[in-house]
Amino acid sequence: MALKLFELVGTDETRPFSPYCWRTRMALAHKGLGAESIPWRFTEKDAIRPHQSEKVPVLLDDDRAVADSWVIANYLEDSYPDRPSLFGGEGGRAMARMLNWWGDVVVIGGMFPLIVTDIVGHLRPVDQVYFRQTREARFGKPLEEVTAGRDSSVETFRKGLDPMRLTLKTQPFLGGTAPNYADYIVFGGFQWARVTSPFALLKPEDPIYAWREKLLDAFDGMARKSPGFAV
Amino acid sequence: MALKLFELVGTDETRPFSPYCWRTRMALAHKGLGAESIPWRFTEKDAIRPHQSEKVPVLLDDDRAVADSWVIANYLEDSYPDRPSLFGGEGGRAMARMLNWWGDVVVIGGMFPLIVTDIVGHLRPVDQVYFRQTREARFGKPLEEVTAGRDSSVETFRKGLDPMRLTLKTQPFLGGTAPNYADYIVFGGFQWARVTSPFALLKPEDPIYAWREKLLDAFDGMARKSPGFAV
Repeated sequence: MALKLFELVGTDETRPFSPYCWRTRMALAHKGLGAESIPWRFTEKDAIRPHQSEKVPVLLDDDRAVADSWVIANYLEDSYPDRPSLFGGEGGRAMARMLNWWGDVVVIGGMFPLIVTDIVGHLRPVDQVYFRQTREARFGKPLEEVTAGRDSSVETFRKGLDPMRLTLKTQPFLGGTAPNYADYIVFGGFQWARVTSPFALLKPEDPIYAWREKLLDAFDGMARKSPGFAV
Repeated sequence: MALKLFELVGTDETRPFSPYCWRTRMALAHKGLGAESIPWRFTEKDAIRPHQSEKVPVLLDDDRAVADSWVIANYLEDSYPDRPSLFGGEGGRAMARMLNWWGDVVVIGGMFPLIVTDIVGHLRPVDQVYFRQTREARFGKPLEEVTAGRDSSVETFRKGLDPMRLTLKTQPFLGGTAPNYADYIVFGGFQWARVTSPFALLKPEDPIYAWREKLLDAFDGMARKSPGFAV
Protein backbone atom coordinates (compact mmCIF):
# COMPACT_ATOMS: atom_id res chain seq x y z
CA MET A 1 0.00 0.00 0.00
CA ALA A 2 1.03 3.58 -0.63
CA LEU A 3 -1.25 6.05 1.10
CA LYS A 4 -1.56 9.71 0.19
CA LEU A 5 -3.88 12.26 1.77
CA PHE A 6 -5.07 15.54 0.29
CA GLU A 7 -5.06 17.94 3.24
CA LEU A 8 -6.38 21.49 3.39
CA VAL A 9 -3.70 24.13 3.95
CA GLY A 10 -3.29 27.86 3.51
CA THR A 11 -0.10 29.79 2.88
CA ASP A 12 1.83 27.43 5.15
CA GLU A 13 1.94 23.96 3.61
CA THR A 14 3.03 22.44 6.93
CA ARG A 15 -0.08 23.70 8.72
CA PRO A 16 -3.07 21.54 7.73
CA PHE A 17 -6.21 22.85 9.39
CA SER A 18 -9.38 21.15 8.13
CA PRO A 19 -11.32 19.49 10.97
CA TYR A 20 -12.30 16.67 8.63
CA CYS A 21 -8.72 16.09 7.46
CA TRP A 22 -7.66 15.95 11.10
CA ARG A 23 -10.26 13.27 11.79
CA THR A 24 -8.68 11.26 9.00
CA ARG A 25 -5.11 11.97 10.09
CA MET A 26 -5.90 10.75 13.60
CA ALA A 27 -7.71 7.68 12.22
CA LEU A 28 -4.69 6.82 10.09
CA ALA A 29 -2.41 7.13 13.12
CA HIS A 30 -4.78 4.97 15.17
CA LYS A 31 -4.42 2.29 12.49
CA GLY A 32 -0.67 2.75 12.54
CA LEU A 33 -0.72 4.00 8.98
CA GLY A 34 1.33 6.83 7.57
CA ALA A 35 0.23 8.80 4.55
CA GLU A 36 2.12 11.21 2.35
CA SER A 37 0.48 14.64 2.63
CA ILE A 38 -0.62 16.39 -0.54
CA PRO A 39 -1.22 20.04 0.37
CA TRP A 40 -4.47 21.32 -1.11
CA ARG A 41 -6.13 24.73 -1.07
CA PHE A 42 -9.77 25.77 -1.30
CA THR A 43 -9.61 26.87 -4.94
CA GLU A 44 -7.63 23.90 -6.24
CA LYS A 45 -10.76 22.02 -7.26
CA ASP A 46 -9.09 20.65 -10.38
CA ALA A 47 -6.59 18.65 -8.34
CA ILE A 48 -9.24 16.46 -6.71
CA ARG A 49 -11.94 16.45 -9.38
CA PRO A 50 -10.47 13.29 -10.96
CA HIS A 51 -11.19 11.62 -7.62
CA GLN A 52 -14.90 12.50 -7.76
CA SER A 53 -14.71 15.03 -4.97
CA GLU A 54 -14.86 18.78 -4.52
CA LYS A 55 -13.69 18.68 -0.93
CA VAL A 56 -10.98 17.16 1.20
CA PRO A 57 -10.01 14.86 2.77
CA VAL A 58 -9.42 12.59 -0.20
CA LEU A 59 -7.38 9.48 0.57
CA LEU A 60 -5.47 7.70 -2.16
CA ASP A 61 -4.71 4.04 -1.40
CA ASP A 62 -2.61 2.96 -4.36
CA ASP A 63 -4.97 3.50 -7.30
CA ARG A 64 -8.10 3.81 -5.19
CA ALA A 65 -9.53 7.20 -4.13
CA VAL A 66 -11.80 7.59 -1.12
CA ALA A 67 -13.44 10.92 -0.27
CA ASP A 68 -15.27 12.18 2.84
CA SER A 69 -13.90 11.67 6.35
CA TRP A 70 -16.72 9.37 7.46
CA VAL A 71 -16.39 7.20 4.35
CA ILE A 72 -12.63 7.11 4.81
CA ALA A 73 -12.97 5.99 8.44
CA ASN A 74 -15.19 3.11 7.35
CA TYR A 75 -12.83 2.29 4.49
CA LEU A 76 -9.88 2.12 6.87
CA GLU A 77 -11.81 0.00 9.36
CA ASP A 78 -12.82 -2.49 6.67
CA SER A 79 -9.57 -2.49 4.68
CA TYR A 80 -7.26 -2.81 7.67
CA PRO A 81 -9.27 -5.04 10.03
CA ASP A 82 -6.20 -6.51 11.73
CA ARG A 83 -5.10 -3.13 13.02
CA PRO A 84 -6.63 -1.41 16.07
CA SER A 85 -10.34 -0.87 15.60
CA LEU A 86 -11.68 2.65 15.09
CA PHE A 87 -15.19 1.76 16.25
CA GLY A 88 -14.89 -1.17 18.65
CA GLY A 89 -17.49 -3.27 16.87
CA GLU A 90 -20.60 -2.77 14.79
CA GLY A 91 -22.53 -1.12 17.62
CA GLY A 92 -19.78 1.46 17.88
CA ARG A 93 -19.76 2.01 14.14
CA ALA A 94 -23.51 2.71 14.13
CA MET A 95 -23.38 5.02 17.14
CA ALA A 96 -20.32 6.81 15.78
CA ARG A 97 -22.49 7.85 12.84
CA MET A 98 -24.59 9.90 15.22
CA LEU A 99 -21.58 11.20 17.13
CA ASN A 100 -20.16 12.24 13.76
CA TRP A 101 -23.26 14.35 13.09
CA TRP A 102 -23.11 15.70 16.63
CA GLY A 103 -19.50 16.64 15.91
CA ASP A 104 -20.49 18.33 12.67
CA VAL A 105 -23.48 20.23 14.03
CA VAL A 106 -22.62 21.01 17.65
CA VAL A 107 -18.81 21.00 17.73
CA ILE A 108 -17.70 22.22 14.28
CA GLY A 109 -20.90 24.17 13.66
CA GLY A 110 -20.69 25.68 17.12
CA MET A 111 -17.07 26.79 16.96
CA PHE A 112 -17.08 28.01 13.37
CA PRO A 113 -18.66 31.41 14.11
CA LEU A 114 -16.16 31.85 16.96
CA ILE A 115 -13.03 31.37 14.83
CA VAL A 116 -14.04 32.09 11.24
CA THR A 117 -12.39 35.52 11.03
CA ASP A 118 -9.10 34.10 12.24
CA ILE A 119 -9.01 31.57 9.44
CA VAL A 120 -8.83 34.23 6.73
CA GLY A 121 -5.31 35.34 7.61
CA HIS A 122 -3.92 31.86 7.00
CA LEU A 123 -5.06 31.78 3.38
CA ARG A 124 -3.51 32.92 0.11
CA PRO A 125 -5.25 35.99 -1.37
CA VAL A 126 -7.16 33.97 -3.97
CA ASP A 127 -8.40 31.58 -1.30
CA GLN A 128 -9.27 34.47 1.01
CA VAL A 129 -11.66 35.77 -1.64
CA TYR A 130 -13.24 32.35 -2.11
CA PHE A 131 -13.49 31.70 1.61
CA ARG A 132 -14.97 35.07 2.46
CA GLN A 133 -17.52 34.97 -0.35
CA THR A 134 -18.78 31.45 0.35
CA ARG A 135 -18.82 31.80 4.14
CA GLU A 136 -20.36 35.26 4.21
CA ALA A 137 -23.11 33.92 1.95
CA ARG A 138 -23.66 31.12 4.46
CA PHE A 139 -23.79 33.42 7.49
CA GLY A 140 -25.58 36.23 5.69
CA LYS A 141 -23.21 38.87 7.05
CA PRO A 142 -19.55 39.95 7.09
CA LEU A 143 -17.27 37.50 8.91
CA GLU A 144 -16.17 40.20 11.34
CA GLU A 145 -19.79 40.56 12.45
CA VAL A 146 -20.05 36.80 12.89
CA THR A 147 -17.08 36.71 15.24
CA ALA A 148 -18.00 39.87 17.15
CA GLY A 149 -19.24 39.14 20.65
CA ARG A 150 -17.55 35.77 20.80
CA ASP A 151 -16.39 36.39 24.36
CA SER A 152 -19.99 35.90 25.43
CA SER A 153 -21.32 33.60 22.68
CA VAL A 154 -18.60 31.07 23.48
CA GLU A 155 -20.66 30.23 26.57
CA THR A 156 -23.43 28.81 24.38
CA PHE A 157 -20.87 26.69 22.56
CA ARG A 158 -19.44 25.40 25.82
CA LYS A 159 -22.90 24.59 27.15
CA GLY A 160 -23.63 22.53 24.04
CA LEU A 161 -20.72 20.27 24.97
CA ASP A 162 -22.41 19.17 28.20
CA PRO A 163 -23.19 15.61 27.01
CA MET A 164 -19.50 15.09 26.29
CA ARG A 165 -18.41 16.78 29.51
CA LEU A 166 -20.69 14.54 31.56
CA THR A 167 -19.41 11.46 29.73
CA LEU A 168 -15.84 12.29 30.66
CA LYS A 169 -16.79 12.19 34.34
CA THR A 170 -16.89 8.38 34.24
CA GLN A 171 -14.61 7.42 31.35
CA PRO A 172 -11.42 9.07 30.03
CA PHE A 173 -12.39 8.97 26.35
CA LEU A 174 -15.58 8.88 24.31
CA GLY A 175 -14.30 5.54 23.01
CA GLY A 176 -13.94 4.24 26.58
CA THR A 177 -10.63 3.57 28.30
CA ALA A 178 -8.68 4.52 25.16
CA PRO A 179 -9.46 6.95 22.34
CA ASN A 180 -11.11 5.77 19.16
CA TYR A 181 -12.84 7.40 16.22
CA ALA A 182 -15.53 8.91 18.48
CA ASP A 183 -12.76 11.00 20.02
CA TYR A 184 -11.17 11.91 16.70
CA ILE A 185 -14.53 13.18 15.44
CA VAL A 186 -14.57 15.83 18.13
CA PHE A 187 -10.83 16.38 18.31
CA GLY A 188 -10.72 17.25 14.60
CA GLY A 189 -12.81 20.30 15.38
CA PHE A 190 -10.62 21.40 18.26
CA GLN A 191 -7.46 20.93 16.22
CA TRP A 192 -8.95 23.06 13.41
CA ALA A 193 -9.46 25.83 15.95
CA ARG A 194 -6.04 25.35 17.53
CA VAL A 195 -4.27 25.62 14.18
CA THR A 196 -6.13 28.71 13.00
CA SER A 197 -7.19 30.77 16.00
CA PRO A 198 -5.74 32.15 19.24
CA PHE A 199 -9.25 32.28 20.73
CA ALA A 200 -9.68 30.14 23.86
CA LEU A 201 -12.65 27.84 23.27
CA LEU A 202 -12.24 26.00 26.56
CA LYS A 203 -11.36 26.99 30.08
CA PRO A 204 -8.36 25.14 31.55
CA GLU A 205 -10.52 23.68 34.32
CA ASP A 206 -12.93 22.11 31.80
CA PRO A 207 -12.65 18.28 31.68
CA ILE A 208 -12.76 18.60 27.89
CA TYR A 209 -9.59 20.70 28.08
CA ALA A 210 -7.78 17.84 29.83
CA TRP A 211 -9.20 15.37 27.30
CA ARG A 212 -7.90 17.56 24.45
CA GLU A 213 -4.47 17.65 26.04
CA LYS A 214 -4.35 13.86 26.00
CA LEU A 215 -5.24 13.76 22.31
CA LEU A 216 -2.63 16.40 21.54
CA ASP A 217 -0.14 14.03 23.17
CA ALA A 218 -1.41 10.93 21.33
CA PHE A 219 0.69 9.26 18.64
CA ASP A 220 3.92 10.78 19.91
CA GLY A 221 2.40 14.26 20.04
CA MET A 222 1.44 14.28 16.37
CA ALA A 223 -1.26 16.96 16.66
CA ARG A 224 0.68 19.07 19.16
CA LYS A 225 3.72 19.14 16.90
CA SER A 226 1.65 20.53 14.05
CA PRO A 227 1.85 24.34 14.02
CA GLY A 228 -0.91 25.96 16.06
CA PHE A 229 -1.78 28.25 18.95
CA ALA A 230 -1.20 27.07 22.50
CA VAL A 231 -4.73 27.69 23.77
CA MET B 1 -34.34 -15.69 37.61
CA ALA B 2 -37.37 -13.71 38.74
CA LEU B 3 -37.24 -10.12 37.55
CA LYS B 4 -39.26 -7.29 39.04
CA LEU B 5 -39.16 -3.64 38.03
CA PHE B 6 -40.22 -0.65 40.09
CA GLU B 7 -41.90 1.65 37.57
CA LEU B 8 -43.13 5.20 38.05
CA VAL B 9 -46.89 5.61 37.76
CA GLY B 10 -49.54 8.13 38.78
CA THR B 11 -53.19 7.49 39.51
CA ASP B 12 -53.32 4.82 36.79
CA GLU B 13 -51.13 1.86 37.75
CA THR B 14 -51.20 0.56 34.18
CA ARG B 15 -49.70 3.78 32.79
CA PRO B 16 -45.97 3.85 33.59
CA PHE B 17 -44.46 7.09 32.35
CA SER B 18 -40.85 7.59 33.49
CA PRO B 19 -38.46 8.01 30.54
CA TYR B 20 -35.80 6.12 32.47
CA CYS B 21 -38.14 3.23 33.32
CA TRP B 22 -39.08 3.03 29.64
CA ARG B 23 -35.42 2.75 28.70
CA THR B 24 -35.20 -0.24 31.04
CA ARG B 25 -38.49 -1.75 29.88
CA MET B 26 -37.30 -1.63 26.25
CA ALA B 27 -33.90 -3.04 27.23
CA LEU B 28 -35.58 -5.95 29.02
CA ALA B 29 -37.72 -6.66 25.96
CA HIS B 30 -34.61 -6.48 23.73
CA LYS B 31 -33.06 -9.17 25.91
CA GLY B 32 -36.27 -11.18 25.72
CA LEU B 33 -36.80 -10.75 29.44
CA GLY B 34 -40.10 -10.13 31.15
CA ALA B 35 -40.32 -8.43 34.52
CA GLU B 36 -43.17 -8.11 36.92
CA SER B 37 -44.09 -4.45 37.32
CA ILE B 38 -44.16 -2.93 40.79
CA PRO B 39 -46.04 0.36 40.51
CA TRP B 40 -44.24 3.16 42.35
CA ARG B 41 -45.09 6.80 42.94
CA PHE B 42 -42.92 9.84 43.56
CA THR B 43 -43.54 10.00 47.30
CA GLU B 44 -43.11 6.30 48.01
CA LYS B 45 -39.45 6.67 48.89
CA ASP B 46 -39.71 4.08 51.66
CA ALA B 47 -40.51 1.32 49.18
CA ILE B 48 -37.16 1.57 47.38
CA ARG B 49 -34.92 2.84 50.15
CA PRO B 50 -33.98 -0.73 51.13
CA HIS B 51 -32.55 -1.01 47.61
CA GLN B 52 -30.23 1.97 48.10
CA SER B 53 -32.11 4.21 45.74
CA GLU B 54 -34.38 7.23 45.90
CA LYS B 55 -35.43 6.99 42.27
CA VAL B 56 -36.70 4.46 39.79
CA PRO B 57 -36.09 2.35 37.83
CA VAL B 58 -34.96 -0.22 40.34
CA LEU B 59 -34.64 -3.75 38.98
CA LEU B 60 -34.84 -6.73 41.26
CA ASP B 61 -33.17 -9.87 39.91
CA ASP B 62 -33.94 -12.47 42.53
CA ASP B 63 -32.29 -11.04 45.64
CA ARG B 64 -30.17 -8.52 43.80
CA ALA B 65 -31.28 -4.88 43.37
CA VAL B 66 -29.92 -2.67 40.59
CA ALA B 67 -30.81 1.03 40.37
CA ASP B 68 -30.35 3.64 37.62
CA SER B 69 -31.28 2.95 34.00
CA TRP B 70 -27.70 3.15 32.72
CA VAL B 71 -26.42 0.81 35.41
CA ILE B 72 -29.31 -1.55 34.73
CA ALA B 73 -28.54 -1.62 30.99
CA ASN B 74 -24.96 -2.59 31.74
CA TYR B 75 -26.11 -5.14 34.28
CA LEU B 76 -28.42 -6.76 31.74
CA GLU B 77 -25.72 -6.75 29.06
CA ASP B 78 -23.23 -8.43 31.38
CA SER B 79 -25.63 -10.80 33.15
CA TYR B 80 -27.39 -12.03 30.00
CA PRO B 81 -24.56 -12.08 27.45
CA ASP B 82 -26.11 -14.87 25.38
CA ARG B 83 -29.16 -12.78 24.58
CA PRO B 84 -29.23 -10.02 21.92
CA SER B 85 -26.67 -7.35 22.69
CA LEU B 86 -27.81 -3.91 23.83
CA PHE B 87 -24.61 -2.19 22.75
CA GLY B 88 -23.13 -4.22 19.90
CA GLY B 89 -19.68 -4.49 21.46
CA GLU B 90 -17.47 -2.47 23.77
CA GLY B 91 -17.18 0.46 21.36
CA GLY B 92 -20.95 0.72 21.35
CA ARG B 93 -21.10 0.53 25.13
CA ALA B 94 -18.64 3.42 25.46
CA MET B 95 -20.36 5.59 22.86
CA ALA B 96 -23.78 4.79 24.30
CA ARG B 97 -22.58 6.49 27.50
CA MET B 98 -22.39 9.76 25.59
CA LEU B 99 -25.65 9.14 23.75
CA ASN B 100 -27.21 8.51 27.16
CA TRP B 101 -26.10 11.95 28.32
CA TRP B 102 -27.27 13.45 25.03
CA GLY B 103 -30.61 11.78 25.67
CA ASP B 104 -30.74 13.17 29.20
CA VAL B 105 -29.70 16.71 28.33
CA VAL B 106 -31.07 17.34 24.85
CA VAL B 107 -34.00 14.94 24.56
CA ILE B 108 -35.42 14.63 28.08
CA GLY B 109 -34.15 18.04 29.17
CA GLY B 110 -35.47 19.59 25.98
CA MET B 111 -38.96 18.13 26.12
CA PHE B 112 -39.52 18.50 29.87
CA PRO B 113 -40.49 22.21 29.77
CA LEU B 114 -42.86 21.41 26.89
CA ILE B 115 -44.86 18.74 28.72
CA VAL B 116 -44.32 19.34 32.44
CA THR B 117 -47.73 20.88 33.09
CA ASP B 118 -49.47 17.92 31.48
CA ILE B 119 -47.77 15.49 33.84
CA VAL B 120 -49.45 16.96 36.92
CA GLY B 121 -52.93 15.73 36.02
CA HIS B 122 -51.76 12.13 36.00
CA LEU B 123 -50.64 12.20 39.63
CA ARG B 124 -52.36 11.58 42.94
CA PRO B 125 -52.87 14.77 44.98
CA VAL B 126 -49.98 14.02 47.33
CA ASP B 127 -47.66 13.42 44.40
CA GLN B 128 -48.94 16.53 42.64
CA VAL B 129 -47.77 18.60 45.59
CA TYR B 130 -44.35 16.91 45.60
CA PHE B 131 -43.94 17.18 41.83
CA ARG B 132 -44.99 20.81 41.62
CA GLN B 133 -42.79 21.88 44.51
CA THR B 134 -39.64 20.12 43.34
CA ARG B 135 -40.04 21.01 39.67
CA GLU B 136 -41.04 24.63 40.24
CA ALA B 137 -37.94 24.97 42.41
CA ARG B 138 -35.89 23.59 39.52
CA PHE B 139 -37.41 25.90 36.90
CA GLY B 140 -37.69 28.88 39.23
CA LYS B 141 -41.27 29.63 38.18
CA PRO B 142 -44.78 28.14 38.08
CA LEU B 143 -45.10 25.13 35.77
CA GLU B 144 -47.79 26.88 33.76
CA GLU B 145 -45.28 29.61 32.92
CA VAL B 146 -42.72 26.99 31.90
CA THR B 147 -45.09 25.41 29.39
CA ALA B 148 -46.50 28.71 28.08
CA GLY B 149 -45.29 29.48 24.58
CA ARG B 150 -44.47 25.88 23.80
CA ASP B 151 -45.96 26.19 20.33
CA SER B 152 -42.93 28.26 19.39
CA SER B 153 -40.31 26.92 21.81
CA VAL B 154 -40.85 23.40 20.46
CA GLU B 155 -38.89 24.54 17.40
CA THR B 156 -35.73 24.85 19.49
CA PHE B 157 -36.28 21.35 20.81
CA ARG B 158 -36.76 19.98 17.30
CA LYS B 159 -33.64 21.76 16.05
CA GLY B 160 -31.61 20.15 18.83
CA LEU B 161 -32.48 16.75 17.41
CA ASP B 162 -30.66 17.49 14.13
CA PRO B 163 -27.75 15.09 14.80
CA MET B 164 -30.24 12.25 15.22
CA ARG B 165 -32.33 13.35 12.23
CA LEU B 166 -29.26 13.42 10.00
CA THR B 167 -28.20 9.98 11.23
CA LEU B 168 -31.56 8.50 10.25
CA LYS B 169 -30.96 9.62 6.66
CA THR B 170 -28.49 6.76 6.16
CA GLN B 171 -29.49 4.14 8.72
CA PRO B 172 -32.91 3.18 10.11
CA PHE B 173 -31.89 3.13 13.77
CA LEU B 174 -29.25 4.74 15.97
CA GLY B 175 -28.06 1.19 16.62
CA GLY B 176 -27.72 0.54 12.88
CA THR B 177 -29.96 -1.78 10.89
CA ALA B 178 -31.90 -2.79 14.02
CA PRO B 179 -32.65 -0.89 17.23
CA ASN B 180 -30.45 -1.25 20.28
CA TYR B 181 -29.97 0.61 23.53
CA ALA B 182 -28.97 3.80 21.69
CA ASP B 183 -32.52 3.89 20.36
CA TYR B 184 -34.14 3.05 23.69
CA ILE B 185 -32.26 5.93 25.33
CA VAL B 186 -34.05 8.41 23.08
CA PHE B 187 -37.30 6.50 22.79
CA GLY B 188 -37.73 6.51 26.57
CA GLY B 189 -38.08 10.26 26.40
CA PHE B 190 -40.63 10.18 23.62
CA GLN B 191 -42.66 7.51 25.39
CA TRP B 192 -42.69 9.61 28.57
CA ALA B 193 -44.19 12.45 26.55
CA ARG B 194 -46.63 10.18 24.71
CA VAL B 195 -47.98 8.74 27.95
CA THR B 196 -48.41 12.08 29.71
CA SER B 197 -49.07 14.78 27.13
CA PRO B 198 -51.24 15.43 24.08
CA PHE B 199 -48.71 17.98 22.83
CA ALA B 200 -47.20 17.12 19.43
CA LEU B 201 -43.42 17.14 19.83
CA LEU B 202 -42.75 16.02 16.26
CA LYS B 203 -44.25 16.78 12.88
CA PRO B 204 -45.49 13.71 11.01
CA GLU B 205 -43.05 14.40 8.15
CA ASP B 206 -40.06 14.31 10.52
CA PRO B 207 -37.85 11.21 10.02
CA ILE B 208 -37.76 10.94 13.80
CA TYR B 209 -41.54 10.56 13.77
CA ALA B 210 -41.25 7.52 11.48
CA TRP B 211 -38.46 6.13 13.68
CA ARG B 212 -40.66 6.54 16.76
CA GLU B 213 -43.49 4.68 15.00
CA LYS B 214 -41.17 1.72 14.44
CA LEU B 215 -40.22 1.61 18.10
CA LEU B 216 -43.86 1.85 19.14
CA ASP B 217 -44.38 -1.27 17.01
CA ALA B 218 -41.35 -3.10 18.40
CA PHE B 219 -41.76 -6.11 20.68
CA ASP B 220 -45.28 -6.79 19.49
CA GLY B 221 -46.31 -3.17 19.98
CA MET B 222 -45.37 -3.14 23.68
CA ALA B 223 -44.99 0.64 23.96
CA ARG B 224 -47.96 1.43 21.70
CA LYS B 225 -50.25 -0.78 23.79
CA SER B 226 -49.34 1.13 26.93
CA PRO B 227 -51.90 3.89 27.55
CA GLY B 228 -50.91 7.17 25.94
CA PHE B 229 -51.83 9.92 23.52
CA ALA B 230 -51.73 9.24 19.79
CA VAL B 231 -49.46 12.16 18.85
